[in-house]
Amino acid sequence: MGKQQKNAISPSRAEDYPEWYQQVIKASDMAERAPVRGCMVIKPWGYALWENIVAQMDRMFKATGVKNAYFPLFIPINFLEKEAEHVEGFAKECAVVTHHRLEKAPGGRLVPGGPLTDPLVVRPTSETIIGDSFSKWIGSYRDLPLLINQWANVVRWEMRTRIFLRTSEFLWQEGHTAHATDTEAIERTRMMLSVYTRMVQDYLAIPVIEGHKTAAERFPGAVDTLCIEAMMQDRKALQAGTSHFLGQNFAKASNISFQTETETEEFAWTTSWGTSTRMIGGLIMTHGDDDGVIMPPRVAPAHVVLLPIFRKPDDRQQVMDYVNGLAAALREMVYAGRNLVVEIDDRDIGGARGWDWIKKGIPLRLEIGPRDMAADSVFVGRRDRPHRDKTAIKREAFIAQLPDILDDIQNQLFQRACRFREEHTRNVDDRSDFYDWFTPKNQEKPEVHGGFAMSHWCGDEACESKIKADLNVTIRCVPIDAGSETGTCICCGKSSDKRVVFAKAY
Amino acid sequence: MGKQQKNAISPSRAEDYPEWYQQVIKASDMAERAPVRGCMVIKPWGYALWENIVAQMDRMFKATGVKNAYFPLFIPINFLEKEAEHVEGFAKECAVVTHHRLEKAPGGRLVPGGPLTDPLVVRPTSETIIGDSFSKWIGSYRDLPLLINQWANVVRWEMRTRIFLRTSEFLWQEGHTAHATDTEAIERTRMMLSVYTRMVQDYLAIPVIEGHKTAAERFPGAVDTLCIEAMMQDRKALQAGTSHFLGQNFAKASNISFQTETETEEFAWTTSWGTSTRMIGGLIMTHGDDDGVIMPPRVAPAHVVLLPIFRKPDDRQQVMDYVNGLAAALREMVYAGRNLVVEIDDRDIGGARGWDWIKKGIPLRLEIGPRDMAADSVFVGRRDRPHRDKTAIKREAFIAQLPDILDDIQNQLFQRACRFREEHTRNVDDRSDFYDWFTPKNQEKPEVHGGFAMSHWCGDEACESKIKADLNVTIRCVPIDAGSETGTCICCGKSSDKRVVFAKAY
Ligand SMILES: [Zn+2]
Ligand SMILES: [Zn+2]
Repeated sequence: MGKQQKNAISPSRAEDYPEWYQQVIKASDMAERAPVRGCMVIKPWGYALWENIVAQMDRMFKATGVKNAYFPLFIPINFLEKEAEHVEGFAKECAVVTHHRLEKAPGGRLVPGGPLTDPLVVRPTSETIIGDSFSKWIGSYRDLPLLINQWANVVRWEMRTRIFLRTSEFLWQEGHTAHATDTEAIERTRMMLSVYTRMVQDYLAIPVIEGHKTAAERFPGAVDTLCIEAMMQDRKALQAGTSHFLGQNFAKASNISFQTETETEEFAWTTSWGTSTRMIGGLIMTHGDDDGVIMPPRVAPAHVVLLPIFRKPDDRQQVMDYVNGLAAALREMVYAGRNLVVEIDDRDIGGARGWDWIKKGIPLRLEIGPRDMAADSVFVGRRDRPHRDKTAIKREAFIAQLPDILDDIQNQLFQRACRFREEHTRNVDDRSDFYDWFTPKNQEKPEVHGGFAMSHWCGDEACESKIKADLNVTIRCVPIDAGSETGTCICCGKSSDKRVVFAKAY
Repeated sequence: MGKQQKNAISPSRAEDYPEWYQQVIKASDMAERAPVRGCMVIKPWGYALWENIVAQMDRMFKATGVKNAYFPLFIPINFLEKEAEHVEGFAKECAVVTHHRLEKAPGGRLVPGGPLTDPLVVRPTSETIIGDSFSKWIGSYRDLPLLINQWANVVRWEMRTRIFLRTSEFLWQEGHTAHATDTEAIERTRMMLSVYTRMVQDYLAIPVIEGHKTAAERFPGAVDTLCIEAMMQDRKALQAGTSHFLGQNFAKASNISFQTETETEEFAWTTSWGTSTRMIGGLIMTHGDDDGVIMPPRVAPAHVVLLPIFRKPDDRQQVMDYVNGLAAALREMVYAGRNLVVEIDDRDIGGARGWDWIKKGIPLRLEIGPRDMAADSVFVGRRDRPHRDKTAIKREAFIAQLPDILDDIQNQLFQRACRFREEHTRNVDDRSDFYDWFTPKNQEKPEVHGGFAMSHWCGDEACESKIKADLNVTIRCVPIDAGSETGTCICCGKSSDKRVVFAKAY
């Protein structure tokens, strides 16, 4: 029996992690490549996950006073010219609209017609156009703080794409706020980072390190860029969210000024912060195993699948009645702020049925046949445990324990990810150890290697860029809660007062 | 005092309805023109309304088994070539992406770079690309029905635009379903229309007529187009949603076939259905008065605004404590499936404060000053009543009655709109009466005229197009629940067996 030996996903994570990632997405039916280069189709199982993330994060945003708005898809090209002035060798990969009509050409082909006098850019972000609105909406200190968020699609032309991680079009949110004082803007920057941390840790069950980006890795124009960094199972870092304090730089560029209480005119202090469908890639790479995706219950597209078993055709009606009754009871229940989502799968396809749901990562599989009915029990498989590790539980007991079971799965996933990160995080103080750890033994087909090196850094950009050039390792962040500690720079040996996080990254 | 005489919006509906519409949107702060031609910025007050509509409709969709997905923004040009083959003189107004980079040109200008071999179209609908996915996703009868919906932005290049009614970019949903039988697809077409009817009538408080489009007004490729038609206060019709039974036409064009239980290969039967931000335009034009927007409570961005009144500076703390306490109590309450949204406005701007909220259309305004506190009461103004018609109610009584008050406002709005429609709907049987009613007395500056004419029609497209050419009046729909009645065609006098709805339309 292949099923007992083999895993559902081939290759395994250890064999070929990037290919495993593609295969997991395919097997889970979450998304697929679109017929448009670099774009993706997010299928219902993947999109429901995104909807759950959006709903929860949106509640968190609103609880801090943020309001949503919608800005146009297109940006006038001259909005970006100002930005380009300051950038040497500016070349922005983005989709440019130059015509507003399709016309029939000979041979049945369609060709662009109606050239635009001024081409339009499909938003890579809405930063400039939101800045333009802010400059109109803000007149006085009474209009502050202005706290705006937008959920939207954005486009950045990408040559090499990977579903959820890097696609030409992706879904995201971008928050933009304006304040009367620097203190308030700095507080807001920190507040939104902590919303991201709560979302990613408490809902996606992904442990993160909160930190500051170095000047070299900072968002252009930002005074300070905060980020959350997570470790994937190939031990690379994934940035799961960023929050920028922009000082008055952005306000000056977009002319966002206000009259103070004392009737002077001042530029506002602004912030911006964003997360995207990339989080879904992070979820897959944090929790997925060689059998597929594992969905944390708090954001899972569905919590439970009921798998009726018919021993003989006569069973069908009776079993389905029992299953439908159970589904109705479960759907009444609320878990983590939403009603339980229950799937019923009565396809007659043998063992492939259970495996389909394992690959999709549904937290709980319940098999229900005539014998289970007779005992008034259900046969439960948990996605965080081996697939043959199933337990019979009395129906009523199962219903009573269900919230705890889901919480337990959620916690197990988080703890497992924390352990993984701990196992692959080291204090590295020796330069050659550092280089050794970040160099694969097999250069042809690099094995999974490295991790998070907590090492001292003198603060010099030359050391940072040398390590990047040598190893493709970057400083992911200077942790916010890093204690002060005397040491010597991993690169140049000069003195340093704290450790930073070095890693390879997505 | 101007306030007692004049209204907040100028011109009034009677003076200049189109201009009144623009001014109402401006005064309510719902949306504004974007710096991009033909596009809009949806501001927080307008966007929150859209979010409430989306949340409610999405729940209704899902209750019928529909799942959401996301398809790419761009459509390969050859997807539309097939469609163009069948259309004489095809010219589609849409945004065409021809380049994937911006480059710096001399003089600091930016110019398109990186020409695409095949231009891409920004989706005017996702019909063709969803069809392509369906053709891949559907193999057997077991994959049916497939019930998919997408919430997204779409772009149709428009020369003359009006916010919410016709803009180059707008937000919408499009549902697409595939079925094994025509019966099931026809049922689905009807089911989704009835979801729209419930949404628009029960939540937006807009009465609608459900009907079939005539062949001339039908969606290209559809076998039957169902629609809901509402009457605006200028007595024109607004189509608030459509649901199409596409037969096998669309499946044949997109090659959506499946293996039946008897192992034959058949084309699927498909439907599509859509609504958009246009509904917001309909809401404004149905309920708005000469003081601004009126929000139906079930979809209102906020339900109640608390307006603290300070007689002297010392009052402030005490009044604000009382107001905050009341807000907290109200926010605990659930109305129409969501927590009450309560705004507190403590700006010191005199009477303009109350008027701001009247213009925004918030259902209830509560003034609270030291005297009200002393009496433990609130001073309540309802947006569906004249602005000076305010009542003192004991705090506890107000809280107890609040759901009923909101329901009453919701019902009053719906009843008022029903009465308006009845007053301006006539059975017209005489051709010259018909022409007279639909011809303004003042041709220079047409007054509000006409309405819904329930008239007989022989079924001949020639009559339909003559009336359209003469009067710009179209058959909005053949009502689904129209009883059979013998009569003569309003145009040619031939016999007819039922009345249809004639009107001018948006
Ligand atoms: Zn150094
Ligand atoms: Zn006729």
